[in-house]
Amino acid sequence: MTDGSAQRLVQRYQSVRERTEQLAAPLSDEDQQVQSMPACSPTKWHRAHTTWFFETFLLAPRGVPAFDPRFGSIFNSYYNTLGTPFARAARGLLTRPTAREIGAYRRSVDGRMIEALLSLSPPELAEVLPLVELGLAHEEQHQELLLTDILHAFAQNPLAPVYRSLAARADTRPDGATPSSARQALEFHRYDGGLVECGGRGECFAFDNEQPRHRVYLEPFALASRLVTWAELSAFVTEQGYRTPSLWLADGWDFVRSEGLCAPLYSRLEGGEWRVFSLRGERTPSPDEPVAHLSYYEADAVARFLGARLPSESEWEHVAARASVEGHFLEAGELHPLPAPRSSGPSPAQLFGDVWEWTASAYQPYPGYRPGVGALGEYNGKFMSGQQVLRGGSCFTPAGHVSASYRNFWQPGTRFQMAGARLARDARL
Amino acid sequence: MTDGSAQRLVQRYQSVRERTEQLAAPLSDEDQQVQSMPACSPTKWHRAHTTWFFETFLLAPRGVPAFDPRFGSIFNSYYNTLGTPFARAARGLLTRPTAREIGAYRRSVDGRMIEALLSLSPPELAEVLPLVELGLAHEEQHQELLLTDILHAFAQNPLAPVYRSLAARADTRPDGATPSSARQALEFHRYDGGLVECGGRGECFAFDNEQPRHRVYLEPFALASRLVTWAELSAFVTEQGYRTPSLWLADGWDFVRSEGLCAPLYSRLEGGEWRVFSLRGERTPSPDEPVAHLSYYEADAVARFLGARLPSESEWEHVAARASVEGHFLEAGELHPLPAPRSSGPSPAQLFGDVWEWTASAYQPYPGYRPGVGALGEYNGKFMSGQQVLRGGSCFTPAGHVSASYRNFWQPGTRFQMAGARLARDARL
Amino acid sequence: MTDGSAQRLVQRYQSVRERTEQLAAPLSDEDQQVQSMPACSPTKWHRAHTTWFFETFLLAPRGVPAFDPRFGSIFNSYYNTLGTPFARAARGLLTRPTAREIGAYRRSVDGRMIEALLSLSPPELAEVLPLVELGLAHEEQHQELLLTDILHAFAQNPLAPVYRSLAARADTRPDGATPSSARQALEFHRYDGGLVECGGRGECFAFDNEQPRHRVYLEPFALASRLVTWAELSAFVTEQGYRTPSLWLADGWDFVRSEGLCAPLYSRLEGGEWRVFSLRGERTPSPDEPVAHLSYYEADAVARFLGARLPSESEWEHVAARASVEGHFLEAGELHPLPAPRSSGPSPAQLFGDVWEWTASAYQPYPGYRPGVGALGEYNGKFMSGQQVLRGGSCFTPAGHVSASYRNFWQPGTRFQMAGARLARDARL
Amino acid sequence: MTDGSAQRLVQRYQSVRERTEQLAAPLSDEDQQVQSMPACSPTKWHRAHTTWFFETFLLAPRGVPAFDPRFGSIFNSYYNTLGTPFARAARGLLTRPTAREIGAYRRSVDGRMIEALLSLSPPELAEVLPLVELGLAHEEQHQELLLTDILHAFAQNPLAPVYRSLAARADTRPDGATPSSARQALEFHRYDGGLVECGGRGECFAFDNEQPRHRVYLEPFALASRLVTWAELSAFVTEQGYRTPSLWLADGWDFVRSEGLCAPLYSRLEGGEWRVFSLRGERTPSPDEPVAHLSYYEADAVARFLGARLPSESEWEHVAARASVEGHFLEAGELHPLPAPRSSGPSPAQLFGDVWEWTASAYQPYPGYRPGVGALGEYNGKFMSGQQVLRGGSCFTPAGHVSASYRNFWQPGTRFQMAGARLARDARL
Repeated sequence: MTDGSAQRLVQRYQSVRERTEQLAAPLSDEDQQVQSMPACSPTKWHRAHTTWFFETFLLAPRGVPAFDPRFGSIFNSYYNTLGTPFARAARGLLTRPTAREIGAYRRSVDGRMIEALLSLSPPELAEVLPLVELGLAHEEQHQELLLTDILHAFAQNPLAPVYRSLAARADTRPDGATPSSARQALEFHRYDGGLVECGGRGECFAFDNEQPRHRVYLEPFALASRLVTWAELSAFVTEQGYRTPSLWLADGWDFVRSEGLCAPLYSRLEGGEWRVFSLRGERTPSPDEPVAHLSYYEADAVARFLGARLPSESEWEHVAARASVEGHFLEAGELHPLPAPRSSGPSPAQLFGDVWEWTASAYQPYPGYRPGVGALGEYNGKFMSGQQVLRGGSCFTPAGHVSASYRNFWQPGTRFQMAGARLARDARL
Repeated sequence: MTDGSAQRLVQRYQSVRERTEQLAAPLSDEDQQVQSMPACSPTKWHRAHTTWFFETFLLAPRGVPAFDPRFGSIFNSYYNTLGTPFARAARGLLTRPTAREIGAYRRSVDGRMIEALLSLSPPELAEVLPLVELGLAHEEQHQELLLTDILHAFAQNPLAPVYRSLAARADTRPDGATPSSARQALEFHRYDGGLVECGGRGECFAFDNEQPRHRVYLEPFALASRLVTWAELSAFVTEQGYRTPSLWLADGWDFVRSEGLCAPLYSRLEGGEWRVFSLRGERTPSPDEPVAHLSYYEADAVARFLGARLPSESEWEHVAARASVEGHFLEAGELHPLPAPRSSGPSPAQLFGDVWEWTASAYQPYPGYRPGVGALGEYNGKFMSGQQVLRGGSCFTPAGHVSASYRNFWQPGTRFQMAGARLARDARL
Repeated sequence: MTDGSAQRLVQRYQSVRERTEQLAAPLSDEDQQVQSMPACSPTKWHRAHTTWFFETFLLAPRGVPAFDPRFGSIFNSYYNTLGTPFARAARGLLTRPTAREIGAYRRSVDGRMIEALLSLSPPELAEVLPLVELGLAHEEQHQELLLTDILHAFAQNPLAPVYRSLAARADTRPDGATPSSARQALEFHRYDGGLVECGGRGECFAFDNEQPRHRVYLEPFALASRLVTWAELSAFVTEQGYRTPSLWLADGWDFVRSEGLCAPLYSRLEGGEWRVFSLRGERTPSPDEPVAHLSYYEADAVARFLGARLPSESEWEHVAARASVEGHFLEAGELHPLPAPRSSGPSPAQLFGDVWEWTASAYQPYPGYRPGVGALGEYNGKFMSGQQVLRGGSCFTPAGHVSASYRNFWQPGTRFQMAGARLARDARL
Repeated sequence: MTDGSAQRLVQRYQSVRERTEQLAAPLSDEDQQVQSMPACSPTKWHRAHTTWFFETFLLAPRGVPAFDPRFGSIFNSYYNTLGTPFARAARGLLTRPTAREIGAYRRSVDGRMIEALLSLSPPELAEVLPLVELGLAHEEQHQELLLTDILHAFAQNPLAPVYRSLAARADTRPDGATPSSARQALEFHRYDGGLVECGGRGECFAFDNEQPRHRVYLEPFALASRLVTWAELSAFVTEQGYRTPSLWLADGWDFVRSEGLCAPLYSRLEGGEWRVFSLRGERTPSPDEPVAHLSYYEADAVARFLGARLPSESEWEHVAARASVEGHFLEAGELHPLPAPRSSGPSPAQLFGDVWEWTASAYQPYPGYRPGVGALGEYNGKFMSGQQVLRGGSCFTPAGHVSASYRNFWQPGTRFQMAGARLARDARL
């Protein structure tokens, strides 16, 4: 969106908005209603909230009346500046408006948005462009959440509903992630570090939490050539990793014991074989497939078990910034991670896509960080405590959504995200 | 069902089963999906569980194969004898089977049931009759629960969905409950007591918990001529009843404080006027209307505030056994209680219908009680601790479902039921 | 205390008060400080609260100034009429006043009490007598609680402190409970029932909850000749009683699973032998010894396992009223239950003492019950919900404290009391 | 301890150990028993655990038999490598061993320790020196905790016990913290930042979490000339800071609402005047006195309210490394913070002592961090998640215990520590 022409912006707007509806299409009205835990939201709520975002931040300031004024509270996620949001844990209780009514809400707002965008002068368009881009990036985030949340809901059902059957052909083959028949050996790429720069370059859209670009001093380090696999997770389980306190952070050990953990979320050992519930139904992962649905605590413990550690977010970004943003994303249609290609080439493989990579870095503001103004100042800044940074995107992430400077973040006990691990090591001379 | 003819039994079966579907008809697929708290169940689950009951206890023993063997667990409510039931609190997570599929399940089981009933010889029919009657009484219980539960779900929604609009004409006028324009004064009917008999007479269907008929000694007592009204509840609130510990049982006082109670469930004072959320939307009750959605603790405290007490279940039954089972039931279509008629006549008014009446009696087995055999032994007996008995039925109860010996029971903190209070007093000479 | 002479009253006062101090004597200041769960109180709190009772209800109305006005709140247990009591769960945080200071508090109040009693005219004495008797009965209740609570506290300590060593000779041999070397066979005594009278006879002190005396109709029943023993509990455990849902009330089954119960409190199987922690240290009970530290749920389940049920409180009282109040009480100094004598005689054995007997009766007011006036009205009445009645006293109960009409009560999940079970059966002709 | 002579080491050992006993001396046996919340420990447990540390890590490896082998579990804090530690929340239930017995335990271990130290050859002494230093630093940490924990316990008691009366003369006047009568204006000292070094220099004892020394890049920043005061906190409260969501991190806002916070812990407004409970009893702080008992969330919100932010730990250390380690420590005997001197001089005032300073930095390992070997590897490393770093020590900290590189850490919701805030700002050119 560099030229700023209204037509191209409308085209991109329509494309992003349409994908949300496509992702919801296989789901029944009942599927779209369910909220399987407070951290998840119903599908139809995702569809409505993303619409509310455009209505609230783009249309309302231009005097466009609300589609339904009562939606202001129930589809506000967490913007206290705009009034008290409806209780997050109760989103699944909102049987009205129905999924059908939310479809009408979306179409109405889309019509108003397109009308507005096409009527703006170039200077006006330039002014609203950052907000439209934010709204679209926001909707892409909720596209990943929609899939993540329905996976969690389906996993609670003994009937094991399938979002897309394994027989179904994926629409697109992922370019950079063609699985190989041979296992890629784990190697480490070495980096000198030194005084490096991190953060958004200002060339394209970036969230406020990626900014400002700033300097970081890195000691020499090494980064694994691929993600941690099921073969490695199996060794961790077999050697009693989930029962060995010395491998765990204290909080993690409390977590493992209070939750009774013995495997990644959605997975179980059945007769020596791993079975993993996915949006494609239950399946057995290849030993070379990246392991997913780990908490930070598990990622950290597995890294320690393997004689390594997790990378800091600066280390990861320093490496990723040199790589092209290619990988196994949502468009591939696989909906579960895929093994790394046989040889990784000059850069580590799988930096982008497949699974988000937990980093050793707490989510904190960069030096000189300034949150947005008004309600949008609540978008990222207020979450900068108690969370860990994840990098790189996943097979649930729309292509083009992530970059080397993109920062995702979750509480360390989060397991329902498409998140795994990559190893790092000190490389002191 | 005294003659036992198959045709009449089938007719009654169809009539009860059809009413469940009629009650669900105004609800969208999403409405039928929601479970607003663990004690409530989704509409579609009620529809499926009542079907499972016939399938499990009538069809399966006759070798009829299950509609879907996987339903055995998820629609089992609490019969441990039949295997581990699906977690009650997670019923709302079962987006599959859909409401439509449950409709098919109902039609299939109905077909098999009717086929079976019509094919039985008279002796066989006589043998299964108690089970069919139990299944139908069970379904009638779930009809009341279906309405009770969707009221709770709708009450959580700021959009305040309406099940049946106030404008809608009720299908039937309740006979014995014609509201009068003048308030019925509170009077007390006096009874000598003595050695009386309580429990089912064995003349018609009765649950095991109503049996055996047994003797109870009653001291002289008096029973109020009508139910406790909003006028009386208002006085309780105005005179700080919810803030006066001496009016409350210790458990009740803890309950009031921990929950922050200041009014019956679904009600609030707005500018000096009571507003009550109901299946007809939010409305202002007449001062003469029976108050509903009280916990046992509140009913007990209000009675103490009014210088009275709640009746024991034996006292209530002793009086009700002499009255005809008439009142304001589900068929009236009002879906909220109605004021008592102006004069009560020889018996207290409103003994049946309007609201369930909390009694002072803990739910315990009668002397000589024997639970049913097999899984059906779990129907009532195992709940005989920690609950209070309620009597008389409500405006959510199908006519014909209750009798003078019918025992309903709920935990003392339960507020979402259509339950209120009637006063009693000692009448020592 | 029938003659009402001041001297004899003072003597009894001193005797009861002194026993509290004797029971506390083996405990260090630290032992007296600890509160091992909210339902327990520190020893020194028991010592102070019983003193506060006399100060508040006897001395204060006579104008005697408080020993320390700040004690009014912290040693008020649950009398809301007297102001907001200090939080029950935080009693163990009150390191001040010290145990030594509480000793001084006791001595001061005792001096004032004796002075007051000796100065009263006979009519005045007759007037205060019921309050003094209540205060002494109250203190006797806390003597049992003191032992019950310190047993719970000691049981939390891996060092397993001993209150009185097994080597120590008991002060007194219990008269009616001489253990025999041979096991008493379980027999049932049959009773015709009919219209009987229950409740205090008004001949001696009785709590308000024992009154008024009233008529109850009993069907024919049978009562076991002795208490349930470790031999019977062992069979229950061996035959998977704790894992068999059909033996349990629904609440009980939830309780067993959520708490992971597999044996009575304080007991465990070690190499096929039962080990029970007691105030005499850990010991192996005789198979004929009554089992203790059962919840109501366990008592009910064990009774069902043994093909019987628990008695109602009326059944129990009907039998006990014909027996003399003899048994194994606190004075024996054994501090754990003892086997029944070999032959039980015309009455069932162990009706009094050894262990409290859970009954099938919910704790509810008798017909015509009137609580005391003022703050003392809170003594019993407000607890009449959610609890079960226990009868007969235990080896922690002072002799003379209980009678055939005495009603103890606890929540059904309570396990830390010295409570066990006796079987009953219907005896229909 | 640079020369390593045994005599001087023994002298220091005795001095540190003796101070623990002096701090416990004003406390009764009951005071020493209490544990007012799971995060606190009883005084006598602190006394025993620090002794266990020397016994376990110094004496046991030399073959000295345990004073009591049962102490191994109950006085192990969190070293899973040494076996399962006794449940932290239950420390207050251990009435045995008594405080007196723990005194004997301390004396016994001290005797063995001194004997051992005096018998070592210089090389042996050099070998054990780091462990002895660690044990002494560990004991100093528990000296601060002992005071912190008893303050929390006393604060729960309506009788408001006083550890040291206000009348009591402090033993020593704090050198660098003489309070002035005039308020020190808030100023900011500006620093250029750049590539700086942080972490322990290896010249004296340092914990593993301070190491290794490493490079950090700092943007230009400014640091406040003194700590945040009660005057500033008052403005925050008056201007509804505790009710303004935009001032808070999301976790902090949840915390404020769920806990109902409206003032720092131990403080309340009474008639417009602040009253703060302290070890000297309840007192009114000077407006210039540093505010204490803030959570990280409150420190962060107050900083935002004041148009500033909290410093990172690197910024703080960069400044503190140039200052001398002087300030208001435990030895002054004041036991509450004191106002800053009138003029701060070239460095910011109060960098050391008074109150710990919450930093904006999550507690994470330094690049190249290596935890200790064996059980001591659990000392710091496993806590590196979910906590924030605090710097500088407090008026509860023994002088000499902290340095510019010392890292304290607590969960962000911790309020019972002697912790406050210092402001920082970006200083971009």
